[in-house]
Amino acid sequence: MQTTTLNSILVQLRAALERDDLAGAVSMLQALRAPDQADLFSELNDEHQVVLLPELHPTASADILEELDDEEAAELVSALPMETVIRIVDKMEPDKAADLLGDIHPQQAQTVLAGLEDPDEVRPLLLHPDDSAGGLMTSEFLALRRRMRAAEAIQAVRAWQPEAETIYYLFVVDRFGKLCGVVNLRQLILADPATFISEIMDPDVVSVRVGTDQEACARLMARYDLLALPVIDAEEVLLGVITVDDLVDVLEDETTEDIQRLGGAQPLERSYLDTGVFTITRKRIGWLLLLFLTETLTGSVLRHFEGELQSVVALAFFVPLLIGTGGNAGSQTTSTIIRALAVGDIDLGDALSTLWHELRTGLMLGLAMAGIAYVRALTWGSPPPLALTVALAIFTIVVWANGLGSLLPILAARLRIDPTVVSGPVMSTLVDATGLFIYFTTARFILRL
Amino acid sequence: MQTTTLNSILVQLRAALERDDLAGAVSMLQALRAPDQADLFSELNDEHQVVLLPELHPTASADILEELDDEEAAELVSALPMETVIRIVDKMEPDKAADLLGDIHPQQAQTVLAGLEDPDEVRPLLLHPDDSAGGLMTSEFLALRRRMRAAEAIQAVRAWQPEAETIYYLFVVDRFGKLCGVVNLRQLILADPATFISEIMDPDVVSVRVGTDQEACARLMARYDLLALPVIDAEEVLLGVITVDDLVDVLEDETTEDIQRLGGAQPLERSYLDTGVFTITRKRIGWLLLLFLTETLTGSVLRHFEGELQSVVALAFFVPLLIGTGGNAGSQTTSTIIRALAVGDIDLGDALSTLWHELRTGLMLGLAMAGIAYVRALTWGSPPPLALTVALAIFTIVVWANGLGSLLPILAARLRIDPTVVSGPVMSTLVDATGLFIYFTTARFILRL
Repeated sequence: MQTTTLNSILVQLRAALERDDLAGAVSMLQALRAPDQADLFSELNDEHQVVLLPELHPTASADILEELDDEEAAELVSALPMETVIRIVDKMEPDKAADLLGDIHPQQAQTVLAGLEDPDEVRPLLLHPDDSAGGLMTSEFLALRRRMRAAEAIQAVRAWQPEAETIYYLFVVDRFGKLCGVVNLRQLILADPATFISEIMDPDVVSVRVGTDQEACARLMARYDLLALPVIDAEEVLLGVITVDDLVDVLEDETTEDIQRLGGAQPLERSYLDTGVFTITRKRIGWLLLLFLTETLTGSVLRHFEGELQSVVALAFFVPLLIGTGGNAGSQTTSTIIRALAVGDIDLGDALSTLWHELRTGLMLGLAMAGIAYVRALTWGSPPPLALTVALAIFTIVVWANGLGSLLPILAARLRIDPTVVSGPVMSTLVDATGLFIYFTTARFILRL
Repeated sequence: MQTTTLNSILVQLRAALERDDLAGAVSMLQALRAPDQADLFSELNDEHQVVLLPELHPTASADILEELDDEEAAELVSALPMETVIRIVDKMEPDKAADLLGDIHPQQAQTVLAGLEDPDEVRPLLLHPDDSAGGLMTSEFLALRRRMRAAEAIQAVRAWQPEAETIYYLFVVDRFGKLCGVVNLRQLILADPATFISEIMDPDVVSVRVGTDQEACARLMARYDLLALPVIDAEEVLLGVITVDDLVDVLEDETTEDIQRLGGAQPLERSYLDTGVFTITRKRIGWLLLLFLTETLTGSVLRHFEGELQSVVALAFFVPLLIGTGGNAGSQTTSTIIRALAVGDIDLGDALSTLWHELRTGLMLGLAMAGIAYVRALTWGSPPPLALTVALAIFTIVVWANGLGSLLPILAARLRIDPTVVSGPVMSTLVDATGLFIYFTTARFILRL
């Protein structure tokens, strides 16, 4: 729905709540789709939220809780009466319910769990970390048996009424519960009713272990265009299924994290305007400080070359230009390499070919920049030896920045550190001190200082 | 499949091709899943590719062509005999076939189109830009009619044998072809065979116009967890369907573009190692040059304050530190804001609340950095007035960088420019010149120069 339409509904919704017209507010909200409901709901203040949620149909409340940010949902639930929470959680998808219970006070979680209609659907999911295959999967799936006939399988599908997630892939298990194949609903409809499932199933199933990282699961689903990914334990027993809507959420969250890290900040846990200024500051100050302290190195380099600087003050004019260009060339390289690593265009074994690729790119970029810098320095009235110094320095700095920018992310990945730590700000800071050193050393030689 | 396994298969595959064992190569490749086949195939040299592709089963060749980068596929097709191309394109999904035909020589495209079994499935798709809903949709869909009974609909599904894309949402049209509802396959199976489709369909369908931008389509599908998105024309006639595998591809491509732009480079069109050094240079040199020329402003600022610089050379030591911190604070802000805009956490109307959010964050970060800079300058042996200058300047620069970093992406978006142009490198460069100006102006006042 258009943002403008939603905004005008929000105004009406707030007005209805202000004049205590709960029924009006409920009908306004329930006319919308779940993600829109959640959007409007999260714009309301805490009191309105606490009053409104119990009045909605439990299914609608469950949808809203599923769509809210984890922290926001946990805070809200802690403010509601226990019976209301139980009624709503009962209608949530088991994987989302487990996430929520993991975020609230353990004692409250125990009470809610005990009150659920089917606690065994949720309990096993509590064991797995949120960001693993086990935390992402739902336990609400239908497993077929190899010896079933197509007609029986269709009967089972009819009899099975999942609450929310529609699964079109039906996984097949043997009598020990081991995953042994997959059938899709269309094949089932097309098949002769008397056919055995084992005859129409595809025995070659892509699956993941329960501890697999969520990003790896998402990449696998994206690569093989899967609508559902089965999760198994060490004995290959089918434990749950990850569905495509979770895949999209995971990819989006991981991208948000990557982009925030690339900007040199720790990722935020909830949406931007809902995150307090104090939290945002906390997420940024660490890197900012670390980079500041690293950057003081540049001061030491400058002090080291104080004599040169005093005899040719004009050298100082080019300092920001040189280190700026080095930082920019480095950022261009790292962002390309980090993304290539993330989507699998290059892997950890490609360090040398990547370095070679970037060094050649750096040579070309460096030559072009050196030519332009030479001309620019001359037109600024610098004597030719100074112009030559600047040109040589910029060439060396660009090649160095490209080389460093290609190796550092791969090195980080090898050390099992997220390569996004080598962000633009980190590159600029690293290149600043080394760039200055290159510049003044070149100046010493050429200007014979 | 594991990268290591794939790499060892690649070695064997190359060996087979070297000794002209085409049958061996074919069976090696056809044992793999389509995305793995495409990966290995694209690692082969051009001659091997041209020899191998016609030998594969046309369905396998079609899968490979669909998975290859656009440019790579077009080059390969141009080197193959026309009959082979026609045989393969016939097995491709219509939307992918249209993309391919749009990338090759128009005359060749005409010949291929004329030779296809069902050219009318592909021809209308050629009219739409690749990155619009029309370019993304497939024309291979099954539309139900409102007056059909459930049993007839199931019969239609059975009779309809789509080549590749499995669609579990079935869209319902009226007699003019206008979209009027959606039924999913599960509902169809559960329904009484005599029920009319109009009774079980959901009339509230999310759809897009044919010209809608692909990223908007993807955001819509992600937001409402859709497995399929119907595409309509101005008269609401159903033209095609976008499926969830395309959604994932679009989100991934857009993310790659965003991250490359955030690093200050134009996005690459194909995967990293397949992109020539010359092309990479071309994609980066524009921004690097523009930023270089902008950065020469800092030289002018320094020259403007040459007198101050000569009387207190120590002022120069803090230049990289101050502009570095400003650039880092600015990058942190823009990357957060750009992502918040992309996922819809903030919209264009939120400029003021975003600015307010960032100014407060900037105040806190600025205070912290000023305190630390003051202490650091003193321990470096700077006289207290100089330390005070540095502290005041860093405070002002951080607040300024945060404010600028929050407004520029929103301003860009308002001017319908991609906000990622306000990348880290752009922020650093903008903050460099203005930051120096702030620094020397502060110095003038405090040091009474």
